Amino acid sequence: MRIGELSRRTGVPIPTIKYYLREGLLPCGERTSPNQAQYGEEHERRLKLVRAMVDVGKLSVAATRDVLNAVDEPGLGLHKVLGTAHRAVTPEVPEEDGPAWAAAEQVVADLVRRQGWQVETCNPARRALAHLVVTLRDLGQDDLLDALDEYAAAAARLSVVELALISRREGLDAKVEGAVVGTVLGDALISSLRRLAQEDASSRAFEAAPVHA
Amino acid sequence: MRIGELSRRTGVPIPTIKYYLREGLLPCGERTSPNQAQYGEEHERRLKLVRAMVDVGKLSVAATRDVLNAVDEPGLGLHKVLGTAHRAVTPEVPEEDGPAWAAAEQVVADLVRRQGWQVETCNPARRALAHLVVTLRDLGQDDLLDALDEYAAAAARLSVVELALISRREGLDAKVEGAVVGTVLGDALISSLRRLAQEDASSRAFEAAPVHA
Repeated sequence: MRIGELSRRTGVPIPTIKYYLREGLLPCGERTSPNQAQYGEEHERRLKLVRAMVDVGKLSVAATRDVLNAVDEPGLGLHKVLGTAHRAVTPEVPEEDGPAWAAAEQVVADLVRRQGWQVETCNPARRALAHLVVTLRDLGQDDLLDALDEYAAAAARLSVVELALISRREGLDAKVEGAVVGTVLGDALISSLRRLAQEDASSRAFEAAPVHA
Repeated sequence: MRIGELSRRTGVPIPTIKYYLREGLLPCGERTSPNQAQYGEEHERRLKLVRAMVDVGKLSVAATRDVLNAVDEPGLGLHKVLGTAHRAVTPEVPEEDGPAWAAAEQVVADLVRRQGWQVETCNPARRALAHLVVTLRDLGQDDLLDALDEYAAAAARLSVVELALISRREGLDAKVEGAVVGTVLGDALISSLRRLAQEDASSRAFEAAPVHA
């Protein structure tokens, strides 16, 4: 197909496609004349993956290229490729110093052990979680951490469900696309569902009851 | 206590406390001399709630005042007060037009019915969820919506756990504080836990296995 048809099928404007071609996020088409190229199904599939990473995952061009390199490296293994995608959409939280930080890292390490999770020490989510533990303790709200294991168990169940959905898909590009979109939009989905479920739980517990403060 | 002691106990700088006093987010102290006032436990408690809303919930002064008005309205009922707090920390998503939007709203309505949730039609999370359904369909990723009910069930369980933690607290201010902090930091907590659980799930499913694309 010509670039116009590729644009029509994917909803990505032609100038954006040309930009991705220049940046190497999309392989060149097959040249059929000095200023015309043909694109195939693999371009359409790759363009959808780039769009998911850039539009939904808000990844930089450099981070997008890192994920694409992982997708294209032969024999890397699906676990490594998905890990690259998951990490690319996880904001980095800097490590901190001091006893409060060390105690929070221990909370995370103990949680990972209790849940029996196989998680590398360099997974950036460990630091994000430690940062939240420090923040909650600093605010004097650490009683909310009593639910940490139930939250973790819910996250574990959802991750298995999500992975099963992704595994049903044909092709590595589509699987990685699902990992990126499922991670980013999945967070927003859970957030909205919690707002609805919170109203329901509060309604059942307190509706029509007087303030008991 | 003097304003300096109030600042020391809460970690809120004196100029910020004075700003909150001017904006009516904090009740005036008891004047003991022309330029000195005394503050009590209720100021400390209220200041912690304001700090949670402004620092953690990123609420505007106007939105913070709305929540405080709900907290202070006699006989409003805990459900209404918590609802005000939950909504204040939920970003508004504008309603859209067209058949895709109507279909997404139906998906949300069906989900709420299947879950048996008691949720007002004006809960802004309905629109946030409909927007996500439209986005996933637009991206051709709607197979990920097959997990919607499992995500909803997880959100329901977590909301009950969260509400039980909040209910243990003494005083309406502390309960509302827990609702704000638990909602905002709870989202971040689940996001981090998902990143860890995803690595574990992927590791168990695919580790050392060749790419099967």
